[in-house]
Amino acid sequence: MIFASDNWAGAHPAISASLADNASGFAAAYGNGDLDKIIEKRFCEIFEREVAVVFVGTGTAANSLSLASVAKPGGIVFAHREAHIIVDECSAPEFLSGGLRLHPVDGPGSKMTPAALDSAVARFAPEIVHDGRPVAISLTQATEAGTVHTLDEIEALTSVARRYGLSAHMDGARFANALVALDATPAEMTWKRGIDLLSFGGTKNGCWCAEAVVLFDPTAAKDFGFLRKRAAHLFSKSRFIAAQFDAYLRDDLWLETARHANAMAGHLRDAISASNRTRLAWDSEANEVFAILPRTLAESARQAGAVFHDWHTPAELAGSIQPDEVVCRFVTSFATSVDDVTAFAALIRE
Amino acid sequence: MIFASDNWAGAHPAISASLADNASGFAAAYGNGDLDKIIEKRFCEIFEREVAVVFVGTGTAANSLSLASVAKPGGIVFAHREAHIIVDECSAPEFLSGGLRLHPVDGPGSKMTPAALDSAVARFAPEIVHDGRPVAISLTQATEAGTVHTLDEIEALTSVARRYGLSAHMDGARFANALVALDATPAEMTWKRGIDLLSFGGTKNGCWCAEAVVLFDPTAAKDFGFLRKRAAHLFSKSRFIAAQFDAYLRDDLWLETARHANAMAGHLRDAISASNRTRLAWDSEANEVFAILPRTLAESARQAGAVFHDWHTPAELAGSIQPDEVVCRFVTSFATSVDDVTAFAALIRE
Amino acid sequence: MIFASDNWAGAHPAISASLADNASGFAAAYGNGDLDKIIEKRFCEIFEREVAVVFVGTGTAANSLSLASVAKPGGIVFAHREAHIIVDECSAPEFLSGGLRLHPVDGPGSKMTPAALDSAVARFAPEIVHDGRPVAISLTQATEAGTVHTLDEIEALTSVARRYGLSAHMDGARFANALVALDATPAEMTWKRGIDLLSFGGTKNGCWCAEAVVLFDPTAAKDFGFLRKRAAHLFSKSRFIAAQFDAYLRDDLWLETARHANAMAGHLRDAISASNRTRLAWDSEANEVFAILPRTLAESARQAGAVFHDWHTPAELAGSIQPDEVVCRFVTSFATSVDDVTAFAALIRE
Amino acid sequence: MIFASDNWAGAHPAISASLADNASGFAAAYGNGDLDKIIEKRFCEIFEREVAVVFVGTGTAANSLSLASVAKPGGIVFAHREAHIIVDECSAPEFLSGGLRLHPVDGPGSKMTPAALDSAVARFAPEIVHDGRPVAISLTQATEAGTVHTLDEIEALTSVARRYGLSAHMDGARFANALVALDATPAEMTWKRGIDLLSFGGTKNGCWCAEAVVLFDPTAAKDFGFLRKRAAHLFSKSRFIAAQFDAYLRDDLWLETARHANAMAGHLRDAISASNRTRLAWDSEANEVFAILPRTLAESARQAGAVFHDWHTPAELAGSIQPDEVVCRFVTSFATSVDDVTAFAALIRE
Repeated sequence: MIFASDNWAGAHPAISASLADNASGFAAAYGNGDLDKIIEKRFCEIFEREVAVVFVGTGTAANSLSLASVAKPGGIVFAHREAHIIVDECSAPEFLSGGLRLHPVDGPGSKMTPAALDSAVARFAPEIVHDGRPVAISLTQATEAGTVHTLDEIEALTSVARRYGLSAHMDGARFANALVALDATPAEMTWKRGIDLLSFGGTKNGCWCAEAVVLFDPTAAKDFGFLRKRAAHLFSKSRFIAAQFDAYLRDDLWLETARHANAMAGHLRDAISASNRTRLAWDSEANEVFAILPRTLAESARQAGAVFHDWHTPAELAGSIQPDEVVCRFVTSFATSVDDVTAFAALIRE
Repeated sequence: MIFASDNWAGAHPAISASLADNASGFAAAYGNGDLDKIIEKRFCEIFEREVAVVFVGTGTAANSLSLASVAKPGGIVFAHREAHIIVDECSAPEFLSGGLRLHPVDGPGSKMTPAALDSAVARFAPEIVHDGRPVAISLTQATEAGTVHTLDEIEALTSVARRYGLSAHMDGARFANALVALDATPAEMTWKRGIDLLSFGGTKNGCWCAEAVVLFDPTAAKDFGFLRKRAAHLFSKSRFIAAQFDAYLRDDLWLETARHANAMAGHLRDAISASNRTRLAWDSEANEVFAILPRTLAESARQAGAVFHDWHTPAELAGSIQPDEVVCRFVTSFATSVDDVTAFAALIRE
Repeated sequence: MIFASDNWAGAHPAISASLADNASGFAAAYGNGDLDKIIEKRFCEIFEREVAVVFVGTGTAANSLSLASVAKPGGIVFAHREAHIIVDECSAPEFLSGGLRLHPVDGPGSKMTPAALDSAVARFAPEIVHDGRPVAISLTQATEAGTVHTLDEIEALTSVARRYGLSAHMDGARFANALVALDATPAEMTWKRGIDLLSFGGTKNGCWCAEAVVLFDPTAAKDFGFLRKRAAHLFSKSRFIAAQFDAYLRDDLWLETARHANAMAGHLRDAISASNRTRLAWDSEANEVFAILPRTLAESARQAGAVFHDWHTPAELAGSIQPDEVVCRFVTSFATSVDDVTAFAALIRE
Repeated sequence: MIFASDNWAGAHPAISASLADNASGFAAAYGNGDLDKIIEKRFCEIFEREVAVVFVGTGTAANSLSLASVAKPGGIVFAHREAHIIVDECSAPEFLSGGLRLHPVDGPGSKMTPAALDSAVARFAPEIVHDGRPVAISLTQATEAGTVHTLDEIEALTSVARRYGLSAHMDGARFANALVALDATPAEMTWKRGIDLLSFGGTKNGCWCAEAVVLFDPTAAKDFGFLRKRAAHLFSKSRFIAAQFDAYLRDDLWLETARHANAMAGHLRDAISASNRTRLAWDSEANEVFAILPRTLAESARQAGAVFHDWHTPAELAGSIQPDEVVCRFVTSFATSVDDVTAFAALIRE
């Protein structure tokens, strides 16, 4: 009953097998091997257009280098107050971009509202050095709260960005989970709705360590190469990333693992809703579930073997939570079994 | 006949197997899993003392974060003019350390001489802000030139460092190759000879992607964790590094692969010395061999399937190389076969 | 009728005279001249203890280098949402500190409340790398809103800092204005109430360009020297700063100019309160006054020669301002004359 | 007999007077005042073309921000091994540019030779991320050794830059001294010979604190404004810089003070050449003189009141200096009197 995080899972057997299959023989290093190039083409097919693909090892690297690639001195990036880049990356985006500032924007469900975004950007006169200058927005899909932006919501936010001449970045650490939740295509969820560059995550969805920045403007790739190397994120044996993506993207494995994780989350939500000892903190659509539990129940569930994290109580819930209650987060993954969910459901049932 | 680089090889079968073996099941992320801790203990045993171990994904990250951990504003690091951190890392050490400067020092065989190091450091008055201030030395073991510092040479350099109050860092991207060349123990080649922190490389010697910073002062680990995360180098599924090191360090696999690579380099050197169409550019002891070839021979060897890189002609060789000759580098690895070396030997034999 | 900013004024005649008096003759550069040292002693007397003093040229430099001096990788600084370091310094504090993050805290009157500060800091677990780690608080005295922290308010905030082991910085760009508003001593308003380091501003209060960082821990000065030089903020002819401070601090000139500026602001406030065409946006105590004007009145006043800036409407006022009204800021200085205030009062009187 | 540095002098009386004359009245801050704009036009006239001018407070800031404005990730700047930006600025250029590397180039008289520059640049393949990539050259005019590049020498170096697509920066901390030594016009010594951007120094030649970056591509000014503010180098009361330049550039004061300083250096050189107890270390043309003195003579001269600095012995002099001799530097300025030089001449005469 491990619901601590999707990164507590290991690697999907197909990913492991692909690594083993590609272990022997020689291949050009630093992204110049045949398999590297095959994977780049695969991304082009998946996104239905020419893209440039930059492999990195962590989601934080993907986000930080993406933002660095659109940075200017004094630049400001707008993201939701609870976005991973703001609360969970130890200022890596600021550091690796030479001093970008991340400006928190509000909105329910960890999604910026277009109005809040607009008013945040509008406060900055475009060329007053004291203020700094807006350069980009970043939205997380799926969000840290397990919610998913609809295609229209994405477009509404990127439209604000476009109006102010800002780049639109998507943090897709859980890209696949959002995609299958929306039943959309990768193209529909990104460039067709105004996204300029994407952190495409594989790690949380069954890879060991496979993240990529997808640049919908492929001419940006040359400079990006220097950004990546200067940040020490260029792998020599790059085919070990390529080999993971090879299995990940083959025969829709990535969609299948994401559907499984989301389905397990759905079962969890059902179990939580069905119990009269606990309730959902808010609704979610991807592979994260947030529930309000009596502390005693959280403790007894843990003693029975369930693993999950307490979560920061959002301001909007402050009034509706009792002192003896706690918000908890449950994350599912390709490795979550129905049995685990069933066992946990039994624990919280009266 | 691939002698392009040791990073053109894939992963050793035992490394692959270990990854597959550790792929299933759940484990705490971000370095907190059981296997992560077992590996840290293994490092303590190997180095015969308490050490802290920080996993990262690239040798450049290991070097850059090591130097960042001993940096001060205006800090200066002394390294050989041809050191990897100076010529091959795209200013990552400077960038990730917030502006350290790398000061080139001379010496034959890509090894700083203690006298040259001393005189370079001595030029800096200790506390004049205009000059900056020395903070560390960094020596590469084995060097980029395939040479290896003897234990006494290491101590002579770290003694200079000690005298000026500087930290002593070792770039051990090819640590194992140097170790078996010297037939020394890890402790003897490092802290017993004055090294304070070490970039311990596994990637070039049979891993997919496994590098570690070894801190002989374990109390430095806490701050190092923030440096690593801020640079986006903290892996979530850290066990995929741990699993590689588990196989790498088990039953002396790492020494065995290094011995093989060095032996293949020895055969290559013998073949080059035996040919009257080519000659060694300089002697080397680890898994890199540098030879002077007629350009026509280099070309014909390549057409016959040999892969190797032209190399920058060092200043000291400038006078002894003919216009129709070129310096070439040959790198061997765990994956280099005797057959490959034999085939290449045949190509260059008259 | 120039109320645009206190930095639209030039230099006080005594400051000019001191510069002229010190223009001839030779003096050691880079802070080593006799006058530099005399001024440092003067600061010690004024603050009733040993302090180290670091001259810089801009308030932004004083703030940024102060925070840099207490920075750590992943470090977080807490300041009011409307603090100058957050809204008016183009990310210089982040940039010059190698990536500190500024965390906005709420509170009325541009002053953080201790409770809001405490709850902001408390969200950060002390040593979780993902979050970053709190390192300092920064409070502005007087604030950008013209308000002044009482001594007890200062202590309440520095007590929170102390409890969490954070440094307490004061942005004193308008230090003198706050000091005379409180009728306190420099010691009382700083280290006796828990402040660790201070940006001491002279420029806005009658100097050309004279700012100093005052370190209540003088041992921090050595490293600070490198921070300053690395940021290119070490003046060669440092006596031109010293000469300004010499006049500024002599015979309480600085308190006199601040009293004058505050008094002029008081007259302005009275005039605004007395008019039934305008009203104070909020009360203030130092040399800034914020008023709500009908747009037509703002326009006619400007046409009559008054110079002042529109101001961002704070969220708490949003409901009480009509569409045809605007918040305006009026700043007074040593150079503001009673006649100017009287003339402006006439403009807004019905 | 103060020959320690030209920054030991104060301000020329005309500079002081201009500051006093501009002290009263109100003016728009941050470079937007009338005088700021008048000075910018003056620069256009002096350089015979449209230029953008950015005021800063230190030569290090002018150099660092100039280089930052042409930086790219992994960028490399080529300068003479003894250039101020390399040996005397505490890594500020690297820090303020986000990690540019300064690559030392050799040449006699502190001037890079075109051949050495070409071969240094040529080693870098243009787009290999490991190496970094050349972005600019920087030459110092006059050099730290008191020498001056001829117009043809400047063009030879900028031609190399042009061939590789690099920007050409001139560090003109002693621009005026070089200009009058060559009897050239500002245009001839800069953009007509291929210079793209210039650090124009006033401080060493009679100002208190007046430096400017001159951009021969004025469209670069907008971004430069953010670079300057982000580094905390934007002065609020910018007219105090403008007022200095107003006097400095009026009636050719700047050329007159430079001619005086150079003439005093000439007298010093004559006196040194005429003495048989000392000799010139090398010839120089601007306001710095380097001599080899017996240590006993250096000591007795100092006891008699002369102030000058020992200098680092350049490698090329190592063989020709006796153990009891020392290289000393003598710097003259607008404030150096004939009497001082005469008195010093008497000290070193037998």
